[in-house]
Amino acid sequence: MKTYVLVMISLALCPGTVSLHAQSDAQPNPPWQLPSDDQRCPSKWGPGDQRGSGNLMKPGTVLRATKLIKTGEVFELGELLSADPKEAFINGGRQFSLYTKPAVPKPDTRTENEELVVAELGQVGTQIDAFAHQMYGDSFYNCYKYADIAGRNGYKKLGVENIGMLMSRGVLIDVAGLRGVDMLGDTYIITPEDLQQALAKEKLALQPGDVVIINTGYGKLMGKDNQRYERNSPGISIAAGQWLVGQDPMLVGADNCCLEVRPPEARMSLPIHQMFLIQYGVHILENLKLEQLSAAHAYEFAFIVQSLKMKGATGSAVEPVAIR
Amino acid sequence: MKTYVLVMISLALCPGTVSLHAQSDAQPNPPWQLPSDDQRCPSKWGPGDQRGSGNLMKPGTVLRATKLIKTGEVFELGELLSADPKEAFINGGRQFSLYTKPAVPKPDTRTENEELVVAELGQVGTQIDAFAHQMYGDSFYNCYKYADIAGRNGYKKLGVENIGMLMSRGVLIDVAGLRGVDMLGDTYIITPEDLQQALAKEKLALQPGDVVIINTGYGKLMGKDNQRYERNSPGISIAAGQWLVGQDPMLVGADNCCLEVRPPEARMSLPIHQMFLIQYGVHILENLKLEQLSAAHAYEFAFIVQSLKMKGATGSAVEPVAIR
Amino acid sequence: MKTYVLVMISLALCPGTVSLHAQSDAQPNPPWQLPSDDQRCPSKWGPGDQRGSGNLMKPGTVLRATKLIKTGEVFELGELLSADPKEAFINGGRQFSLYTKPAVPKPDTRTENEELVVAELGQVGTQIDAFAHQMYGDSFYNCYKYADIAGRNGYKKLGVENIGMLMSRGVLIDVAGLRGVDMLGDTYIITPEDLQQALAKEKLALQPGDVVIINTGYGKLMGKDNQRYERNSPGISIAAGQWLVGQDPMLVGADNCCLEVRPPEARMSLPIHQMFLIQYGVHILENLKLEQLSAAHAYEFAFIVQSLKMKGATGSAVEPVAIR
Amino acid sequence: MKTYVLVMISLALCPGTVSLHAQSDAQPNPPWQLPSDDQRCPSKWGPGDQRGSGNLMKPGTVLRATKLIKTGEVFELGELLSADPKEAFINGGRQFSLYTKPAVPKPDTRTENEELVVAELGQVGTQIDAFAHQMYGDSFYNCYKYADIAGRNGYKKLGVENIGMLMSRGVLIDVAGLRGVDMLGDTYIITPEDLQQALAKEKLALQPGDVVIINTGYGKLMGKDNQRYERNSPGISIAAGQWLVGQDPMLVGADNCCLEVRPPEARMSLPIHQMFLIQYGVHILENLKLEQLSAAHAYEFAFIVQSLKMKGATGSAVEPVAIR
Repeated sequence: MKTYVLVMISLALCPGTVSLHAQSDAQPNPPWQLPSDDQRCPSKWGPGDQRGSGNLMKPGTVLRATKLIKTGEVFELGELLSADPKEAFINGGRQFSLYTKPAVPKPDTRTENEELVVAELGQVGTQIDAFAHQMYGDSFYNCYKYADIAGRNGYKKLGVENIGMLMSRGVLIDVAGLRGVDMLGDTYIITPEDLQQALAKEKLALQPGDVVIINTGYGKLMGKDNQRYERNSPGISIAAGQWLVGQDPMLVGADNCCLEVRPPEARMSLPIHQMFLIQYGVHILENLKLEQLSAAHAYEFAFIVQSLKMKGATGSAVEPVAIR
Repeated sequence: MKTYVLVMISLALCPGTVSLHAQSDAQPNPPWQLPSDDQRCPSKWGPGDQRGSGNLMKPGTVLRATKLIKTGEVFELGELLSADPKEAFINGGRQFSLYTKPAVPKPDTRTENEELVVAELGQVGTQIDAFAHQMYGDSFYNCYKYADIAGRNGYKKLGVENIGMLMSRGVLIDVAGLRGVDMLGDTYIITPEDLQQALAKEKLALQPGDVVIINTGYGKLMGKDNQRYERNSPGISIAAGQWLVGQDPMLVGADNCCLEVRPPEARMSLPIHQMFLIQYGVHILENLKLEQLSAAHAYEFAFIVQSLKMKGATGSAVEPVAIR
Repeated sequence: MKTYVLVMISLALCPGTVSLHAQSDAQPNPPWQLPSDDQRCPSKWGPGDQRGSGNLMKPGTVLRATKLIKTGEVFELGELLSADPKEAFINGGRQFSLYTKPAVPKPDTRTENEELVVAELGQVGTQIDAFAHQMYGDSFYNCYKYADIAGRNGYKKLGVENIGMLMSRGVLIDVAGLRGVDMLGDTYIITPEDLQQALAKEKLALQPGDVVIINTGYGKLMGKDNQRYERNSPGISIAAGQWLVGQDPMLVGADNCCLEVRPPEARMSLPIHQMFLIQYGVHILENLKLEQLSAAHAYEFAFIVQSLKMKGATGSAVEPVAIR
Repeated sequence: MKTYVLVMISLALCPGTVSLHAQSDAQPNPPWQLPSDDQRCPSKWGPGDQRGSGNLMKPGTVLRATKLIKTGEVFELGELLSADPKEAFINGGRQFSLYTKPAVPKPDTRTENEELVVAELGQVGTQIDAFAHQMYGDSFYNCYKYADIAGRNGYKKLGVENIGMLMSRGVLIDVAGLRGVDMLGDTYIITPEDLQQALAKEKLALQPGDVVIINTGYGKLMGKDNQRYERNSPGISIAAGQWLVGQDPMLVGADNCCLEVRPPEARMSLPIHQMFLIQYGVHILENLKLEQLSAAHAYEFAFIVQSLKMKGATGSAVEPVAIR
């Protein structure tokens, strides 16, 4: 039987006071909890909305990004997709398998090759999360319900095909650079102050619709030490997530597995994923390659990402770029 | 036993005189044949090159494209990826299968969903061809040999991971529009004159490094009448291909299955694929959605495509855009 | 909200009086309904049982079968597994795809070949159904519940690995033969009388633990006219199913898609599947090839089937045999 | 270029004198080499034969096996198929992945579950090798050639569908038991004398058409220490293979990865696989579970194996049994 125990707690949280919904298995004094369906739905984008922060994508954000292209220099931020752990990181419990379907060569004859790919393609490599990825109880972003939208061959709502191409001003928040390290510690908790100081150092401010890219340096481990990369990661705190959401970003990404710190604060179950993907509808980018971007001190740029329109998928492997 | 009968024929072809390599199964007087390895290798991009026309991608092409972005209007040119033939076209003999891996919902608990994708992902939907896709005898672009580069899990050379993000000036050559029809006939052969007249009508000229997009109108059949779409298609002739190659494009694409007319001239085996992917190293885009672009009379634009860096794959499903 | 309307009806059914459980979407006067959880659980094999009629498999059934082997003549009753619809039938909405992973041949060197198979392997071709295959509401055989046993990578209970090798006396009930036809009509409803008369004609009686094989002749369509084969089929009625269950069979199979007649009586949702796999725990064999067996008038034989022990799977493709 | 250096050596080997074919990369004085095509083809089963030792399967072998069934006791010799390395062994570089395709439970409604299996199904778990599995240069059993029989979706010849159900007298040769150990050493080389002494100890002699099962004890490692199990294994020597082939077996199997000792003698490339599958056409069974059979001292029994008739596959996962 489903049992819901509602505990109303008033908290002074940025961006506002929200009431929390206690988990039956809750910690005493959890630092944050997903608001109940009643409190979080409809989302600010309206009943039935499936696009969340993707709604910020407009001709204006394209033009704003375009103005930042000055030299034509391109930074490719996506990983190689390979089953070889010496070349790439594939998220835990998933596979990226590529099976060549070669032609048998015939003299003086054109033949063609192709390959079968078997992969959790929404959730491997450098990837963007669609809202169908996360569920609390049986409830998704904008309170779509599992029994209504689930299916064997894709979700009927909230699939990655709703995202479309995103192009906007990108801002690199280099927390590793701020701290003067190559890589933040394995469980470093990025605070709002870290984000604000890194921005201030480069005299930048976030604007609504920005793509926020956070450099932890941890992405250097991908294809080098996948086990360490997967076990933990430096990442944003709950408070940092709340601050970011308050800036109205189109997309937030990082060079780590899950954007958020792991293990998460108070041993919660990926609270930033709950907050971004279920509550606010903010898309997340994971496993970015940021070495070149940060080395080039490219803090402001046009950011472009094209996700595969896989009907009903929970995300897509992507190969985003930053251009300046 | 492999038997090679070499017939040397001197032809005045643009962009130069090439000698042809007779097929043992050749038609009398074939209109074109793939030059022999000796004659076509190394490619103009040098021995060992794997990127062909992708080498044209440079900061300069990015800047040239950027200048064409004036309103921020985005045209998405990629198909939905779906197994449902009423929604999408999947190239013959291939599959795009998506199997949801749902969590079992649990009260008051975050769970996550993902999906397994099984697909010939290099060759389904709107897709870009890498050079590993095509082989003549046992020889590829730049005369890489099957025994040297083939493997069970991807080609060791010429894989799609070599392409990278491409951004350049895009030019729409609207042949259907030129002929005043919604859709060219099922086996309409697009000639060099068709291309030149359509360009002249819009007072446009191709420049080296352009992305050339050809509108046949045939793409409207995708997801509507896949059988007809697949059986034949209007597309470019051998002469049109030769003229295009002479313009030094970064990429050539169309809203049909294979860029080239099918059935091909003289019943050859996809001669444009041989010419572009084996001889010259020019990437091809297939199954584009061009309805909106042509309806908007958008003839010149920034074109951007991000292919998945699947190590050793023969191509990638893509979701390219035109922006003006 | 789940609403259960319980309608108690007393029926003289073998093996006992059961009460029926009305569906909220029920027809007026449905001919049969699955008893409620309270009424059907535990199964006669006891609480927690996962093997149902498989429990009948014992040294005694093996010996009884062995005594029927007199000439050593083997009848292979399983289909070819192939993606080619001219060679095989694959159950609707499923695939059997086989991708060769060839070695690249090397002179004077041993190499090895293998293949990737992508298939709903529990439910394609000639196959046996495990109890995880069928669910009513969220309840399975012996009232195992979905939330307790479901998982992404197989069911925690009731998987095909519980069946094991089955060997027992097999009895062919040739209803097509009884009716003097090559193939029963497309929606022929096999009654208890059909079964009893066909047995009487051969002077045979069923015994507990028998493998009952029903010949409809319809299996001849597999690989010949798959569309017709799949659309409808002659098969057993609800009453015939009840009579069969009363004989305590180890396994019941037929040369049709689903053992039972389709469309089912009173437009119910595969009532025989509910009765056999959820209520009584009797395994089902589908898509048998019975041409040779029936042509040889082999009515009594040793029957042997080995299912793949795929942990948590809902069934297995099989290649059973009859030997006499 | 293919270079063949033929070294003719006359050897007194059973079943006759054969000449050997030197590898270009050969060791000095290799203990055995695959005879050249001229010398080994056609096989003793005649030109075009695809069944090899499977031809020994006849009503007579069935009857001979049947006579050995005295108590009805069944020994299941096949492994569980599972992706979990704590439960099962999957041969290196391969996968056995099972993805549940659950129905979304609906109140008062029958739904059904199935699963997608992605696996190198011919070569995982307890499995039987078909002749398409092994190639020397471009030549298979009975000198079928790669260019003639290879295809993307299965081999045109020599596929596992040719094997059919096999039932014959089975004989356990318990070499571990002979040596008084639970498990032979990791690289123990089983000699002809080992086999002969183990048979003599039980007063058994092989007969043509027998299924020979060799107990090394090593199979106990499956699902316990897969890494050790895969790295090396006790197994038969080249001489033991030659002796066995001389006994005209229907099938030879063992509770190890590859029947033969690994690393193989003289660092050859799986010589027993060459000898059995390419030269003589004797099927091989691998990864058997023999704990119960050997513990029960069951040395003579009816052996039955049903392989899936996957068109053009190189083998099949199987679940064979011994019955006495």
